[in-house]
Order: sequence, then structure tokens, then C-alpha cells
Amino acid sequence: MNSESVRKLFEQVRRGKISPDVALEQLRHLPFEDLGFAKVDHHRALRIGIPEVILGQGKTPAQIAGIFKKLALHGRNVLATRASKEQFSAVKKTVRGAKFERSARAIVLHRDNKIYGKGLVTVISAGTSDMPVAEEAVVTAEIMGNKVERLYDVGVAGIHRLLMHRQAISRSRVIIVCAGMEGALPSVVGGLVGVPVIAVPTSVGYGASFEGMAALLGMMNSCASNVSVVNIDNGFGAGYVASLINRL
Amino acid sequence: MNSESVRKLFEQVRRGKISPDVALEQLRHLPFEDLGFAKVDHHRALRIGIPEVILGQGKTPAQIAGIFKKLALHGRNVLATRASKEQFSAVKKTVRGAKFERSARAIVLHRDNKIYGKGLVTVISAGTSDMPVAEEAVVTAEIMGNKVERLYDVGVAGIHRLLMHRQAISRSRVIIVCAGMEGALPSVVGGLVGVPVIAVPTSVGYGASFEGMAALLGMMNSCASNVSVVNIDNGFGAGYVASLINRL
Amino acid sequence: MNSESVRKLFEQVRRGKISPDVALEQLRHLPFEDLGFAKVDHHRALRIGIPEVILGQGKTPAQIAGIFKKLALHGRNVLATRASKEQFSAVKKTVRGAKFERSARAIVLHRDNKIYGKGLVTVISAGTSDMPVAEEAVVTAEIMGNKVERLYDVGVAGIHRLLMHRQAISRSRVIIVCAGMEGALPSVVGGLVGVPVIAVPTSVGYGASFEGMAALLGMMNSCASNVSVVNIDNGFGAGYVASLINRL
Amino acid sequence: MNSESVRKLFEQVRRGKISPDVALEQLRHLPFEDLGFAKVDHHRALRIGIPEVILGQGKTPAQIAGIFKKLALHGRNVLATRASKEQFSAVKKTVRGAKFERSARAIVLHRDNKIYGKGLVTVISAGTSDMPVAEEAVVTAEIMGNKVERLYDVGVAGIHRLLMHRQAISRSRVIIVCAGMEGALPSVVGGLVGVPVIAVPTSVGYGASFEGMAALLGMMNSCASNVSVVNIDNGFGAGYVASLINRL
Amino acid sequence: MNSESVRKLFEQVRRGKISPDVALEQLRHLPFEDLGFAKVDHHRALRIGIPEVILGQGKTPAQIAGIFKKLALHGRNVLATRASKEQFSAVKKTVRGAKFERSARAIVLHRDNKIYGKGLVTVISAGTSDMPVAEEAVVTAEIMGNKVERLYDVGVAGIHRLLMHRQAISRSRVIIVCAGMEGALPSVVGGLVGVPVIAVPTSVGYGASFEGMAALLGMMNSCASNVSVVNIDNGFGAGYVASLINRL
Amino acid sequence: MNSESVRKLFEQVRRGKISPDVALEQLRHLPFEDLGFAKVDHHRALRIGIPEVILGQGKTPAQIAGIFKKLALHGRNVLATRASKEQFSAVKKTVRGAKFERSARAIVLHRDNKIYGKGLVTVISAGTSDMPVAEEAVVTAEIMGNKVERLYDVGVAGIHRLLMHRQAISRSRVIIVCAGMEGALPSVVGGLVGVPVIAVPTSVGYGASFEGMAALLGMMNSCASNVSVVNIDNGFGAGYVASLINRL
Amino acid sequence: MNSESVRKLFEQVRRGKISPDVALEQLRHLPFEDLGFAKVDHHRALRIGIPEVILGQGKTPAQIAGIFKKLALHGRNVLATRASKEQFSAVKKTVRGAKFERSARAIVLHRDNKIYGKGLVTVISAGTSDMPVAEEAVVTAEIMGNKVERLYDVGVAGIHRLLMHRQAISRSRVIIVCAGMEGALPSVVGGLVGVPVIAVPTSVGYGASFEGMAALLGMMNSCASNVSVVNIDNGFGAGYVASLINRL
Amino acid sequence: MNSESVRKLFEQVRRGKISPDVALEQLRHLPFEDLGFAKVDHHRALRIGIPEVILGQGKTPAQIAGIFKKLALHGRNVLATRASKEQFSAVKKTVRGAKFERSARAIVLHRDNKIYGKGLVTVISAGTSDMPVAEEAVVTAEIMGNKVERLYDVGVAGIHRLLMHRQAISRSRVIIVCAGMEGALPSVVGGLVGVPVIAVPTSVGYGASFEGMAALLGMMNSCASNVSVVNIDNGFGAGYVASLINRL
Repeated sequence: MNSESVRKLFEQVRRGKISPDVALEQLRHLPFEDLGFAKVDHHRALRIGIPEVILGQGKTPAQIAGIFKKLALHGRNVLATRASKEQFSAVKKTVRGAKFERSARAIVLHRDNKIYGKGLVTVISAGTSDMPVAEEAVVTAEIMGNKVERLYDVGVAGIHRLLMHRQAISRSRVIIVCAGMEGALPSVVGGLVGVPVIAVPTSVGYGASFEGMAALLGMMNSCASNVSVVNIDNGFGAGYVASLINRL
Repeated sequence: MNSESVRKLFEQVRRGKISPDVALEQLRHLPFEDLGFAKVDHHRALRIGIPEVILGQGKTPAQIAGIFKKLALHGRNVLATRASKEQFSAVKKTVRGAKFERSARAIVLHRDNKIYGKGLVTVISAGTSDMPVAEEAVVTAEIMGNKVERLYDVGVAGIHRLLMHRQAISRSRVIIVCAGMEGALPSVVGGLVGVPVIAVPTSVGYGASFEGMAALLGMMNSCASNVSVVNIDNGFGAGYVASLINRL
Repeated sequence: MNSESVRKLFEQVRRGKISPDVALEQLRHLPFEDLGFAKVDHHRALRIGIPEVILGQGKTPAQIAGIFKKLALHGRNVLATRASKEQFSAVKKTVRGAKFERSARAIVLHRDNKIYGKGLVTVISAGTSDMPVAEEAVVTAEIMGNKVERLYDVGVAGIHRLLMHRQAISRSRVIIVCAGMEGALPSVVGGLVGVPVIAVPTSVGYGASFEGMAALLGMMNSCASNVSVVNIDNGFGAGYVASLINRL
Repeated sequence: MNSESVRKLFEQVRRGKISPDVALEQLRHLPFEDLGFAKVDHHRALRIGIPEVILGQGKTPAQIAGIFKKLALHGRNVLATRASKEQFSAVKKTVRGAKFERSARAIVLHRDNKIYGKGLVTVISAGTSDMPVAEEAVVTAEIMGNKVERLYDVGVAGIHRLLMHRQAISRSRVIIVCAGMEGALPSVVGGLVGVPVIAVPTSVGYGASFEGMAALLGMMNSCASNVSVVNIDNGFGAGYVASLINRL
Repeated sequence: MNSESVRKLFEQVRRGKISPDVALEQLRHLPFEDLGFAKVDHHRALRIGIPEVILGQGKTPAQIAGIFKKLALHGRNVLATRASKEQFSAVKKTVRGAKFERSARAIVLHRDNKIYGKGLVTVISAGTSDMPVAEEAVVTAEIMGNKVERLYDVGVAGIHRLLMHRQAISRSRVIIVCAGMEGALPSVVGGLVGVPVIAVPTSVGYGASFEGMAALLGMMNSCASNVSVVNIDNGFGAGYVASLINRL
Repeated sequence: MNSESVRKLFEQVRRGKISPDVALEQLRHLPFEDLGFAKVDHHRALRIGIPEVILGQGKTPAQIAGIFKKLALHGRNVLATRASKEQFSAVKKTVRGAKFERSARAIVLHRDNKIYGKGLVTVISAGTSDMPVAEEAVVTAEIMGNKVERLYDVGVAGIHRLLMHRQAISRSRVIIVCAGMEGALPSVVGGLVGVPVIAVPTSVGYGASFEGMAALLGMMNSCASNVSVVNIDNGFGAGYVASLINRL
Repeated sequence: MNSESVRKLFEQVRRGKISPDVALEQLRHLPFEDLGFAKVDHHRALRIGIPEVILGQGKTPAQIAGIFKKLALHGRNVLATRASKEQFSAVKKTVRGAKFERSARAIVLHRDNKIYGKGLVTVISAGTSDMPVAEEAVVTAEIMGNKVERLYDVGVAGIHRLLMHRQAISRSRVIIVCAGMEGALPSVVGGLVGVPVIAVPTSVGYGASFEGMAALLGMMNSCASNVSVVNIDNGFGAGYVASLINRL
Repeated sequence: MNSESVRKLFEQVRRGKISPDVALEQLRHLPFEDLGFAKVDHHRALRIGIPEVILGQGKTPAQIAGIFKKLALHGRNVLATRASKEQFSAVKKTVRGAKFERSARAIVLHRDNKIYGKGLVTVISAGTSDMPVAEEAVVTAEIMGNKVERLYDVGVAGIHRLLMHRQAISRSRVIIVCAGMEGALPSVVGGLVGVPVIAVPTSVGYGASFEGMAALLGMMNSCASNVSVVNIDNGFGAGYVASLINRL
């Protein structure tokens, strides 16, 4: 236990071995972690329903399997994002119960299936090419204990497809909207509901989409006031923010 | 009442004047608003605690006074953002009770002082120059029925100032963080708490800050997973999103 | 008449004064305009219904009045865009019948009121701030002989307002859509109709709108296939292109 | 049939089972598609001469063959853009009559060869490297029922090559101009004719062409008033817009 | 004294009023500043030779005079950067001894004239227009206790002017180089010496200098390994970094 | 011969078969090339010392060999830039005498070895990585009939290496300077001489060099007045411009 | 005379007062300018026909008058660019013969009217708004001793206007082309001639012209090989480079 | 010895063979290096503790082995940055004692292990992905004779991890901070210490990180005054600058 040295200090004071003034001085020179500050992190580690997360991208199958195994020991859900089939092959050899969510490019280990979210998280995407990002948001929200509904391929150029699902959308407590190209969908969705909308620009598009920059700028300038934005292709971040909101 | 023509259609069917098939056909050719779709907006208009909002920027004092007066008739709170002292002078002549929040550059009319937010909204800013944006967020969250606390001038280059208020921050249900220059504060705050953080890049800075672009990019790339971002200097948007989250 | 020298050449050949070979050689060394090439321009000048156009911006009242007067002698309609009240004051002193279209910032002289457009041009705008650009498009289309309808303040965050006018939109032969901020409106409109949509990004917005760049990029990436784009705030260009299409 | 529930409502009113008021209320809560709004799409689907379109890019040969086969059942023309030879191999096994337009990177199925366009569409390109984009425009315009003429390799640095074809250009009802590098050709072409010019920036170039951004910006700033622009390398979009214009 | 509450805790333990375990628990819940962490800042405040600094830009004369007066009470040097003549007029009325360094746009109050820097700081500028930035660096370095030499107007297009001063440059312990336009000077200076070079891009230039962006990028890409860079026009930052280096 | 139809016209006039007026009318409707305008190109084709040029990039070995062979028939020098070893293998099988300049990535065929340039062209490069671009400039200038000297690896961070060659530089009639990273070398060279300097930004660098953009901006902002700039990595263009200047 | 100390060294050696070795050592420690290196600049100062140049922008009338007067003492031509009427008023009081070229925003003093250029410099501009930049080029080329012809308002959207002057253009030895907006004119001009073309992007335009960036990028990507480029609005630089070329 | 010709000149003067005036004239025309100017470089070559450096990137194993071997002859430390395993295989065959620092991607040869740095250099990184850049800085600082400590994976979103090491950080004489994504760490570190901080933006991140541009801009705008910045991923540059500072 890392506050042992502080306790010892108090003990010495109690025994009269050192004066309060000396103890105070020594307290100031103790390594920082002894001051209990690390509790922040510790507490966070214990926060219920928050999975352990690994960024798969740029790691070897062996590396990811090693980290995954170690995190699995904590007893919480584990999520590896931007993972490949090869990485999953390595993981499943060492971690029983790990599954590969292919379309989300994610490896998941579900230990805690409790629902922490108070309402429905709806994940909407503009086109089929946005699906990997949308699915990453879905998988993230699910592993963080949310009921999630998908509403895909409802881009703004065929607005009636979106409107047909208006009532389904209205049931949501938080909404994630993934869109590339002009990134207009979050504004339209935002205008239909009175709940927070998390917008995810995707790198879908070509030419003047500039790898998602056009969609990002579009979403930053949304004329709907209930829209906030995460990084390009950051389905994980959107799922994470939505989950935090939904458990409030 | 705009659904009158639909009601008339049903009446004619009831009286046997037209067959259901003919009625169906006529229904399809009615102007859209008669189909009741406009209810969406109507409902929104009635949603409790959401103020009427005017963008002051680019309007003459006379224009803003006119709009403000008209909106005030609805009986809800009214908020004019990016407003000037001159605009307020015009407003206060026609609307009793309107006040000018100078540091937020906002004109407010409080009719409904009920608290709709379930917890505390904390608005944090990095430097004193970010204050107008932060205050716009504060005023917006307050007029939408939230308890708001300010924590200003706690930029990352003096991290201890922020940490001194760690416990205060931990009491928040939603946090808004305004920062210009490198825009690093939301990441640090995000790492200290487990609730949603709305980041507002401000145009504070010079040279390579490019009117807030540096801060915007920084926030989009936040390494804290609970951060989402609104437009540069968009204190209103942040206050609005935070309010929606806080009443969930 | 500028083909006189060519005619003279033929005459000399006819009279046997010079041989065809010599004439051919001389032909090649005549100033270019004598070859009749300038007819292109001449023809254009005579093309019916195309107004004479002056860019008001950056000219003194005296300059614009002088040019306006000279162009008015041609007997065609005259249009000065981006003009100020001061410029109009100077123009109206010298050109009888010139009018100032304040909201479009345009000075117009209508000589030819014939309708050349075969159908309806509809000009749609997202917000009230886009009006000067939309009005420039309206005035341009009108002076080029089109019936024009306005549909303003129907931005995507309140999609029902646009949809209410769906049938009106469907009557159009060409549609111009002006929008700033995220510039999403042309995609939605484009999805509702089967006719060409001319998108005009406007510089309306702040922060990450980057003076219209966000809207421009959004429109370039429109997921509706019937959208093409003109320069930021270029209401004139949109009105011009729409007019050419409408008279086909 | 999706308006069945509305019909049932009328039937109940007719039979006196429910009052018009109750019916009106129920109507408002029916799922959106029952209101007949989906007709928009249905109508569009039936619009003559508009092909079914698939974006080949990013799809497996099996996927594209499956989609292509399904769309071919509708009896309309089918177009797959940005397609590869491998994708075509898969398609031709399942769809009789499908052809590969190699230079346009397109798979086409011609069922309806009727000419819907009222005049000539001319596709002009600046250099030989722009040809794939230009051909995509040609194939799109042809499958949408237009007579198309090609005028390739007539870049502005050898202006006489373009001018030699001046009369051919003048016969066009709509013109598409594809150019990379400085993207200057649409301005020159636009100055020669009085019809709409659709400009397509291409990613041809290197260094400061920034993948077509230089050409895009050049075209947005065209000093010819009859030019509108589509996305970089978007030959399909240009062909689509030109076809819509040409059938007006 | 802010560690009083901790001392009290020790005292209570010494007196046996509370057990070490209870004390430990209470320690953890004390407000952060009581843990002595604030010493960091306190120490910094006492660090010798570091002036109090005010950013003059955007403050009224009254505001700056108020802040200046308050800081002057600390007994240390005071520096207000980006200050105007009007601001100085207000300051000099309340703070005796304050001076205005016009070319540096700085108000200074020298209380401590001791030299803390171990060697010479040389400030080099490319052109006369870079002087305000260079002077800001000079004033900053001087008020932080350095001997400073100026070497102005030695841009790379007249390389001999720089080389004439080669020996003077070689005497420096740290060098600051201010340059706008192409920002090439730091590379050349860096190649002449073996000491750290702080490069300051300035916004001097026009057109493609993009307010200093060209110079900034140039300096970031310096082929001299001893160059590091601060923000555009940030003479203060350069003077500050150079001072810290020079007192090592 | 393409002016045949014009000659025929004159002949008919001479013979009295048609009147001058009719001839004039017919002249106006002749295809453009019959008017002799194509002479511009013809003349250019005959201009001495200008090679036929092929851009190798993006062409198959077979394609390049075919074009090369055809151009070789004109009897002039032939240059293929951005060519690969594989392309050269194909060329040398069909064109005797073709050589591969490996470091310039160019295939050359020298037929005309006459010196057309009146003075010396010096090609200077900042670093060894800039060599391919510099060599492309050398090969271009040589095949266009210039005496060329190389001065490589004389970047600004070791200014004495450049200065050692000051007299050699002074002998030049035109100078080409290739540099990546900060692109500072042209300014320094420009300051040393009184002749035109053609600057070539190269894509050498990493990070904030942005593929040559930093060097390009640096060169555009050169404080030396005798510098003009060509595209990133455009060694050919620089060699071409320098050759035109040198033969004046 | 600044080589006096070197001469003295030789003298001492001659007299046997110091040995060659000692002299060599002393030589190495002499201040740089004594080594004669400064001759470079001196020579430049004496180079015939090169004017003394002052950048007027950002200087007070008094400053510019002072500098102008001092430079006028050298007996050479003097040119102040980007100068205002107020600055000229101050200059003309102290320097007899100074003239204000209003459209070029330049103050000139002609002492040496000799023609140094061997041929004709033609300055071409696309639109009337480009005139100030074009005139700056004209004034610069004239004061450096060139015969200059203007060809204004011949933008690419009316290509025949340019072509009418084809023969005039062909007489030029060097050509300067100024254009804003899409910046296409240099490519067209470059294709018509076989001499060097200096392209000057201007900041004329709006929206996506981005203060001349669009024109700059267009010109950098010119498909004409004889084009090189100077900074946005840098008419002076173009005139300077053209003058150096023309006197070769 | 390269000053031989100067010595010879003195000798001739001494012998009376040439007069001082003639000698002076000849001196001026000697090649530059004979004037002893090259001493600058020579001195630099001898400067103790500075390694010979090779940029491995873009060189073949054979090339790098050849250069490495040659430099190893100088007897100084040798460092090859951005080197591959293959390059090392080639080097170790020819240079005994060369080692491969895998995580830094560097080949090192330690000849001189003396400590030249007066204090501790601490290298801090935000995330594990920043390690290659951080290690390059470590290896560079070590081979230049510094004691280096690593402090990795202490990003701002978990600020307590950084703070735990506050005292370790305080012992540093110079600090290098490597961070990608939002690049916020240097500001926080800068605020904790009173010594120079060298910030290295890394290309770690995705989407709106734009290959390190977001981090670069963030660091340029750091609100901590003791931060200066080097190029993206330039660990070598940071290690080099830190080493120069640390030996002052």
C-alpha cells in the first residue's frame, strides 16, 4: 500500500520520535505517490463498467495478445480497437472468451454484461462505407453497458430514409452520427431531436474530402446547437462519450 | 390550425362523401404541413427550459430589439448572444426585465428560473482572455436552468492551480473547458474526471494559433476519451450541449 | 467594319493585282481581328437577354457611374453587382431608370423585360444571413429573363421547414442553394429533386467556417449527384449559370 | 403496400368506428413511411433514363457482382464506376450483356438505348492523363441517354488546338471540361461559348498541385461566369449534372 | 501559511487526539493546496531574476496600470509586452521608474539590475521590419539579467553583411534570430556557430508569407541542427528561453 | 498543306467564280486551322534546339518506347523525364543511341549537339538528396544546348562551402538552385550574383516540410529580387526556363 | 578604404618587420570586411542601371523622404514601391525631380535614362483590377532601362482579345503576366511564345481565391514549361527579374 | 595546407618580387578557401564531443556502410539516424564496435565516452508510440556526452503519472518532451520547471492530427514561456540542441 510511508510518519509523531515540524518537512519531500494522489487513477481503475482499452493499430499479434491477457486478469471487460484478424488469432489462443467483431475491427472480452446506460444509444451512419467507424462506436457503447440501436445508410441526399425512422430516433437518450464526404447528417439529426448528438467525421470520400477534413469542418460548423464532435474516424471516442452521458 | 384540411378529409369519409381510396389519394397531395409533420417543431417550441435564442452579431439595435420583443411574448427565457451595449440599449427600451451580461456579451431575459439540470455544470477556462467565451457558456447554461460554477485562469502551464480545485471539479456532472493557444486544458481535465467534457477552442492567441485552429486541432486529437468539441469561440453551443446532457 | 482589309485583299485578287499566293501570304500577316475571329465576341455581345455586368466592388462612385452610362447605351439590361448606396447615388444621376436592389447590393437597369427562361428558377437559402448572396442570385436570374421564386431560411437543422415546401421545390427547372456554415443544404435539396442544383457556399459563419471554406468543401463533397458548385458568395455566378441552363 | 394502415384508418372512419378527431390523432402517430412520403424515392426510381449506379471502389468482386445482378433486375441501365478488371470478371459471369469500359474504369449494362438528351454533350480534357476522368464523364452521359463528343488533349498551353475545334464546341448544349495541374481550361472554354460548362478538377499533376486542390481552386475562381464545379476526379458527377441539364 | 492544517494534523497525532490511521484519512481529504504542492508556484515566484510579466495587448490603459502597480509591489522587475504609448501614460502615473521601450512596444520597470546570464545573448534580425520583434527579445533578455548585443538588418540576400560580424557572433553564448519572409537566416547563423540558436519567425512579408507561416515552416525545417523555434512574432518567448539557457 | 482551302478561295475569286463578298463570307466559316493559325505550333515545332519531351511517369515501358520512337523520327533531340530503368530497357531496343541518365531519371537521345546557350548555366543544390531534381535540370539544360556546371551539397547551414565557389558562381549567365527543407539557398545565391536565379523547391525533408510546401513558400518569399520559382521537384521546368534565358 | 589594413600587412612584410607566417596569422584575425569580401556588395552598388529601391509600405512620410534623399545622392535612379500620395508629398519637398506614378503606387527619380535592355519587355494583365501590380512591374522595368509595352485586360475568358495581340506578344524578349482569380493567363501566354514568362499571381478575387493563393498554385502548376513565378502581388520582383534577363 | 597560396604571396612580397599593391590585388582574386575562411568548418570538425552524423533514410545498406566506415576513421563518435536493421548488418561487417539501437532506429559507434554535459538531460514522452522519436533524442544526447534519463508514457490525460515524477523532473538541466496527438505535454512540463524545454511534435495520431501538424501547432502556441520547438519527429534535433545547452 503506497501511503505506508505517510502512515509511518504519523506513527513516529505519535511516538514522539519526531516533532510535527520535522514531520511536515519530511512530508514535503516524500515522493509524490506517497501522498495518496495516485488515488485518482486507482479510483478510475475501479470505476464500474469502464472497459480496459487497447489500441490495436501498430502492435504485433504477440504484443496485443500479451497486453490483452494481462488486462483480462483485472476481471473487467476488455476492448481492443483497430485490431486485425491476425491479432485476434493470437489473442484467442491466450484469452478464453475473446471475440472478434469483424466489421468494427475490434476484439472484445465480455465479463460484465450489466446495463449501466439509462436509455438507448442510437448509432446513425450516412453511407455503407462509414460502417467500420459506426460499428466501432456500437461495440464501444455495448461493452460499456448500453443498449444500442443501429440506423445505417440514411445519408442526407435521401432524406426520407432518415425521416422514416424519426420516431425510432426520438426514443434515443444519446445519438452518435457518423458521416464522411460533406458530413451534413449530424445537423439534420440534431434538428430532429432534443438530446445530445455526438458527431464523428469519417475519412470516407475522395478529392476535396481531404481524408475527412471536409466532414470535420462541416460538423464543427453545424447549425444544430446540440452537436459536438470527435476526431475523424474516432468511433471509439464517440461510443465512450455517449456511454458516459448515458449513465449520468 | 394547420391540420384542418386533414380533419375535413376524415369528416368527408365519415359522411360517406368520398371513399377511403379517394381520401388516401387526396391525402397524398395535400401540402406537406397539413400532414402534421410540423409537430416536430411545435413540440420543440414547447420543450421546457429551452430559451429562445438570437444571434446578435450583424444585426442593428433596432432589428434585435424587434426580434427580442416578439420572442419575449412566448413567455420563455430569451437569450441574445454576441450582443453589444448598443443593442442592449435598444432592447431594454422595449422589453422590461432584460439584462446585459457584459462579460458574456449577452442579453438575457429570465422568465423561468426553475433548475432543470440534475447536477452541476462547471465551466473552466485556461486564461483570462478566454473569459468572454466561457461566460457565454455560463450564461447559456444558466438560462437553460443549470447550476453553474466557474473555474477560470487554470491553464496547463501552472497545473497546480487546476489540481487545487480537483475536488471541486469532481463534483461536476458535465464540464465545459474553454482554451485558446495550444488548447491542452480539456485533455488534462478529461483525465481527472469520469464525466463528459465539452471542449471549446477559443481564438485567443497569435501567430501560429491561426485564429483558434491550433486549439481546435489540439482538442480534436485529445488523448482523453471523454472529450468532444464544438466550434471555435462557440461558448453558446457548449452551454447548450452541456445543458441537454445535464437534464438527462 | 473590321473585315474591310480582307475584302480589299479579295478585291485585289479579283482584279488580278495580286496573285492568290501573295494574297494568302498577306492574309497571314493581317492583324488578327481582321480575320473575323473577333466575331465570337461580337456575337456574344448581341446574344439576347444577357445583361452587361459591372463588378461594383473597388470602384469609385464616379467610375461606376461612367461605366454604367456607357454600357446603358448598348440598349441591353445592365447589372452592377456588389454595389453600394453611394455608387447608386452617382449612377442614378446619369442613368434614368436605374434602380438599387438594396438586399442584393446591386444596381439594375431593366430595358428588356422579356422572359427567356423556360421554367422556374428557385433560390433557396439556409439562413437569413445568406440573404445578400441569395438576393444577388435572384437579381441576376431576373435580369437575365427568368421567373424566380425565393425560399429562404430553410436550413437543415429544421428540415421540416424545407420539406413543407417540397412541392414548390419540385416545380423548379433549376435550383440555386445558398448556405454557409456546414453547407449541407444543397445535398438535401439535391436528394429531393431530379433537376440541376447550383450550390453557392457563403462566408456566413465563424471560427472553423474559415470564411466559407467549410461550406465550399462540404458542397464539393455532396453525396447528391446533381450538385455543382460556384465560388464562395458568388450569387451572381449561380444566377448566371442557372439562367443559361433555364433557357436551354 | 405501405399506405395500408392509412387506408385502414379511413375505413374505420367510414364505418363510424372512430371519429375523425381520433383518426387525426392516430394519423399523427403512424410511422412516417405510411404517410406516403416515400413516394419521392419511388418516383425517382421510376424516372426514365437514370441508371442504377454502384461505386466500385472498395468493394470485392463478389460484392459488386451481387449488387450488379440485383440492380439489373430492375430493367434499367446499370453503371458501376471506379471498377477494376477483376470486378468486371465477376460481374460478367452473372450479368449477360455487361461490358467493361476500360479507360473509364466502368462496368456498364445498356438496356435502354433511347436518347433523352436534347442536344450534344461535349467532354473536353486538357491532357492525356485526364482521360480516365473524362471517360467516366463520357460513359455516364452516354448511359443516361446523351450523344457525346470527345475533345481531348487541348490544354491551354497550346491554345490553337482548342481553337481549331471552336465550331465543334459551339454546337454543344452542355460542356464538361476536365483538367488537372492549373485547371485553367474551363475558363477558356467558358469564354468561347454561351452554354453551361461543368468543370472537373483532376488529381493530375505533382508538387504544388496538391492532389487536385490547385485545379479545384482555379476552377472555383474562374473568370468565366458560366462555369460550375464538381469534386476532384468526379467524372461521374459531371456526366450526371450534364445529363440532367441536357434533358431539360 | 497554507500548510497550517497539515501541521495541526501532526500536532493532534502527537497529542494522541487522533490515531495515525485517522490522520492519514484526513490528510487525503484536505484541500490540495494544504499538501504543500503549491510550493512549486511559490518557489517560482521567488526565483531570482525572473520578472513579472503582463501581456499588454487587449487591456485598457487603466487595467494595465492597475496590474502593473500591483506587480511592482513584489519588488521584482516588471515587464509589459505589446504595450502602447497610451498604456504607458497610465502606468507612469502610478509606478515611478517605469519606462517605455518604444521600439520593443514594452513597458519596463527595472528594480534588479544584476547580471544573471553567464555569457552574451546576441539578437540578430534579417530586416529592419523585424525590429519590433527583435527588440522585444532584447528587452526581455535584458530585464532577465543578460548582456545583450544587437545585430540587425543582416538578411541572407546580402550574406557578407552577416559574415562581417562572424567573430562578434562567435562570442555569443546563446543567439536569437528573428526573420520574416523566407525565414532563412537561422539556418545560416546556426551553421556558423556551435551554440543554441532560438529562431523567431516574424509576420513580416506579404502574399505567400501568410502572416509568418512561410517563415515558421522554413525554420522548422532548418538544416542546421542547433535551431529550435518559438511562435510567430514571439520575441518575448525567445528572450525568455535564451535567458534560461544563459543562466544555466 | 492546311491553307489549301484558303488558297482555293483566292483562286476562285481570281477566276471570277465567286465575288469577294461571297469569299469573305466563306472564309469566316472555314475550319479554324485553314486560317493558318496553326503556324504557331508549326513554328514552335521547328524551333531549333528545343527537344521533344515525354513525361515518363505513369506510362508503361511499351507506351514510352512507342512514343519515343515516333518522336525520334523528327530528327531532334528527345528527352523522357521521370523515367525508369524498365522504361529505358524498352526504349533502347527500338531507338539506337538512346541513353539513360540514371541520377536524373531521364532517357535522352542526342541528335543535335550544338551549343545554343550564350553563357554558362550553373545548377546548385543544397543537399545530396536534392540531386535527382538537380540532375533533371542539368540534363534538360544540356539537351537544349547549354554548357552546364554542377555545384552540389552547398546548403546554407555550411555557408562557407557555397562561398568558396563564389567566383565560379559569378561566371554564370543563369543559375538554377534546387533545395528542399527550408528552401533558403536561392536567397543566398541570389544575393551573391546579378543574374536571374531559377529556384526549384524539392520535396526533400520530413514533418513540417509538407512534401516541399515549406521550401516552396520560402522561395516565393525570397528577399533576393532576382529569384523566380517553378513547381516542387520540377527540375525539367527550371532547365527549360534557364535554357530559354540563356539563348536570348 | 577598407583594405588598408591588409595593405599595411603586406607593407610590413615587405619591410621585413614581420615574417610571412606572422602576417598570415594576423590576416586570419582581421575583421572580415578587411579581407575585401565586401567588394561583392560594392560591385553591386556600382552595377549600372540597377536603381536604389525603397519599400514604402510601413514607413512614415518623413522616414521615406529621408531615405529617398540619401539614396538620391548616389546619382543612380531611385524607386520607392508601395508608396502613398502622402509619402510622395514629403519626398518631393526634398528631392527635385521625383515623380509619383499613381497607378503603380511608386515614387521614381530618373537620373539615368539609358536603355540597358536588349529587347522589349511586355507586361500583360488579366483584368483591370490587376493593374496596380502590372504597373509596378512596368515602372520597375522602365527605371531599370527597358522598353516596356502594356497589354491589359486580356483575361482567358475572352481569349480572342489576347490572340488579337499575338504578333505584338511575339515581338517580346521577356514577358510578365499578372493575373488573380484562377491565374490561368501565364499558361496561355507561355504556350504562344518561346521566351521566358514571369508570372505574378495577384490577390485579386474573393472567396476561394484566398488572397491570391489560388492564382499562385495555378501558376506553379502551369502546363507551359517556360513559366516561372514570383510572390503574390510582387510586380516589383517580376520587373526586376525581367530586367536582368533582358540585359543578358 | 590550404593557406599555402597566401603564405606564398607574403613570401613574394617579402622577397620584393611583388609590391604590396599587386599582392593585395592577387589576394582578392585567390579562391576563397585560401583566405582561411574554411577554418570555421575545420574548427567545428574538431569540436569535442560532437559526433559525425549520417541520415540513414533513403540510403542503401552499402552506401551507409561506406560512409560510416569513412567517418569512423576520424576517431570521433558516429551516429546514423533513421537506420534499418539491414543497414546495420552492412555497417557491422566493416566497422567494429558499431551497435544498433533498435528502438531509436540508430546505429552508433562510441569512441569517446566522456561526459561533456554539466547536468542531466531528461527525455519525456507522452505515449508509447512516441518512443522511437524519444529514443532518437536519448541516443543523440548520450553520444554527445550527456547523462540522460527517460520518463515515458506520462501523457496529460493521466496528469498524476507525470506529477509523481515531479522531483525527478526538477533535477534536470534541460528537458526534451516528445508528444503527438494534441501535443500538450510540453506546456505542462514547462510549467513545472525553470529550465529550457525542447518540444518535439511527433506524427503519432490519426485523423485531424494531420501527421503531426496538430501537435506542432499546439507546441508553437505553448502557454509556457520556456518552450521552443523542433520539427515533427525530429528527435535527433532535440537531442542535439539539448546537448549544446547542457554543455554551456
